[in-house]
Amino acid sequence: MAETHDLTEFLSFAITLAQEAGKMIKDATENRMSGTGNQFLVKYDNPTDLVTETDQAVEKYIKKRLAETYPDHRFIGEETMAEGVDAVFTDEPTWIVDPIDGTTNFVHGHPFVAVSIGLTIGKEPVVGVVYCPLMNELFSAAKGHGAFLNQSIRLPFFQPTPPPLGDLSQCVVATEAGSDRSPEVIDKKIETIHTILKQKQHNGKEAHSIRCTGSAAINLCTVAKGVVDVYWEVGCWEWDVVAAIVIVRESGGIVVTGSHQPDPAPVNIFSRKYLAIRAAQDENSQLNVAQQMWDIIPEITAPRKAVPGGFEP
Amino acid sequence: MAETHDLTEFLSFAITLAQEAGKMIKDATENRMSGTGNQFLVKYDNPTDLVTETDQAVEKYIKKRLAETYPDHRFIGEETMAEGVDAVFTDEPTWIVDPIDGTTNFVHGHPFVAVSIGLTIGKEPVVGVVYCPLMNELFSAAKGHGAFLNQSIRLPFFQPTPPPLGDLSQCVVATEAGSDRSPEVIDKKIETIHTILKQKQHNGKEAHSIRCTGSAAINLCTVAKGVVDVYWEVGCWEWDVVAAIVIVRESGGIVVTGSHQPDPAPVNIFSRKYLAIRAAQDENSQLNVAQQMWDIIPEITAPRKAVPGGFEP
Repeated sequence: MAETHDLTEFLSFAITLAQEAGKMIKDATENRMSGTGNQFLVKYDNPTDLVTETDQAVEKYIKKRLAETYPDHRFIGEETMAEGVDAVFTDEPTWIVDPIDGTTNFVHGHPFVAVSIGLTIGKEPVVGVVYCPLMNELFSAAKGHGAFLNQSIRLPFFQPTPPPLGDLSQCVVATEAGSDRSPEVIDKKIETIHTILKQKQHNGKEAHSIRCTGSAAINLCTVAKGVVDVYWEVGCWEWDVVAAIVIVRESGGIVVTGSHQPDPAPVNIFSRKYLAIRAAQDENSQLNVAQQMWDIIPEITAPRKAVPGGFEP
Repeated sequence: MAETHDLTEFLSFAITLAQEAGKMIKDATENRMSGTGNQFLVKYDNPTDLVTETDQAVEKYIKKRLAETYPDHRFIGEETMAEGVDAVFTDEPTWIVDPIDGTTNFVHGHPFVAVSIGLTIGKEPVVGVVYCPLMNELFSAAKGHGAFLNQSIRLPFFQPTPPPLGDLSQCVVATEAGSDRSPEVIDKKIETIHTILKQKQHNGKEAHSIRCTGSAAINLCTVAKGVVDVYWEVGCWEWDVVAAIVIVRESGGIVVTGSHQPDPAPVNIFSRKYLAIRAAQDENSQLNVAQQMWDIIPEITAPRKAVPGGFEP
C-alpha cells in the first residue's frame, strides 16, 4: 500500500517536524540549565517512569501539525495514549510518535534524548525520523530510499561493506534497565545481561560489552550506524521504536522479536519486545546472532492493552 | 608543590597534544570505515580487553612529544605499562596517559572514544584533558582554574547552581561491565547493578537508571557535566581516570574510593576502585549518595603490581 504514496514527501515533512520539535526540547533544556526554565515533572507515581511538561507540549505540537497537514492520517502518541485514548491500528497512514524518548535523560539534562516520528502504511513502518537535538544528530529513512545521518551521511558508517558480524562473543549489545522494576522484569533482564557478559566456561556469552544510553530510539540508531551490533529490549513501546525500525532496516539491519520465542519474521511493533542486529554482509550471520540471543532471552511479561488491528492479548 | 608550577601552561600543552592525538584517532576511524585502514588488533588473549595498533601509535606519539617538551617529567601510560615497564610514583610532575579510553568502542567504530592526558604534581592530579575526537568534545581542567567543555563552556552545565542532589533513588548511575569477566568480578558487579536498579521493597535502591558508555573517562566527564549523578567502577586504571578526576573536581564533583570500605578522602589513583559524585549545592548530599553506594558495593578484588610511592599491595 505504501507504493501508492510519496514516501519522500512524508519523510521531508517528518524531518521538518522533528527539527521543530527538537528546538522545543533544546530550548527547554537550555532554559533549565540556566535556571530559568519550568521543568516540572507531571507524573511521579512510578519513580522510574518520568513525564515532563515538555513531553506533553511537544506531543501536542506534533499532533496538531500532523492533523493540519494530513487530516486523514491517524495518530498514536505516547502522551495521548497515557491519557487513556484507545488506539486502533489500521492500514491507513498512521503516525506513531514519541515526543521525548529518553525522558529520564531529559530530566537530568543528559543529551541522549530524541524525538521519534514514525509512519506506518498498510501497517508497515515506512518512514522514520529520530532527531537528537542536543547532539545535532538527525537520523532519517524512508522505505526503499536508504538511511541517513543528517540527511547526507549514508548508514551504516562502514561503506561500501559493513565489517564481518561474528558471533555474540564479538558483539557490543545495547539494552536498558527500563522503567518496569518489578522482580518479574528486572530480575530476568539482569540475569540475561549477566549471561551476555560472563565467561563461556561459566555458561556465558562473553560479549565485548553492554551499552546503555537510556533511549531505545538512540540505541536502534546506533545499530543503524553499525557501531553497536545488537539491541535487545523488553518493555519499551511502539512509539519508541517505529521510526528507528525503518532506519535500522534501511541501513541493512534487521529488527525481529525480542521475546524468548525465536521468530525471524519482522517484529510486531506492538509486542514491546524487540531485537535488532546491525547490517552484515550476509543475513545468515545476522540470524545466527539473533538465534544466540533467543537462546538466552527468558520469558518476560510485558503486558499492554489491546490494540485492535495490531495486538490482541 | 603544584603551586610552584604554571599549571595553565601545562594545560595548554596538554590540550594541543590531545588535539593532535585525537586527529590520529579520528583518521584511523575514518580510514577503517571507508575500508582503507589497517585496523589490526594486536592483542586478543583476553577477548574483552582489546588493544589496537592505534592505541600503541598514539601513546608512542604522546610520550615522545612530552619527552621533547618536558624532559624532566615522568610518564605512566597504558601501553608502556603493558610492555612491562615498572612505574614508580614520585612527587615530580608525572603525565598519566591513556591513548584510547574506550578501545572496544574504537574497534567497533563507536564514537565513545577518548584520549586521556592527566598530570600529577606532588602526587596530586592537577591537570586533565579528555578529548573525544569523534564527538568534538574536549574536556579540560587545571586545579583552581575550573573545568570546561571545548574551552568555553563552564562545567557543570547547570549554572549558576547545580540542581539538588537527592538520594540514590533519584540518581542516574554510570558504570561498566569492564574487561575482567571472572566470576569474582562480574558476578559481584552485576549483583550491585541489580541492587541499584531494583525496587526498594525488594531491598533495592530503585535508582533512575544505569548508563554504560564503555569509557571511564567519558563517564567521569559526564559526571562533570552534571548530567549523570554517580559513576562507580572497579577494575579500570589510573590512566583511565587521572585526567577526568581533575575535571570532575574542578566542576564541583568529588572522586572518592569505589571500594566497599567507606572513605571520604580523595581516592588513591592506583586503587582501581573509583566513585564520583556530581556537583551539588552542599557536600553533605554528595557524601550521602557516596555512603549509599558504599553500603551496597561488595568486596571485589582488583589486583595489580606494586607502584612504589603510589601503591603497595
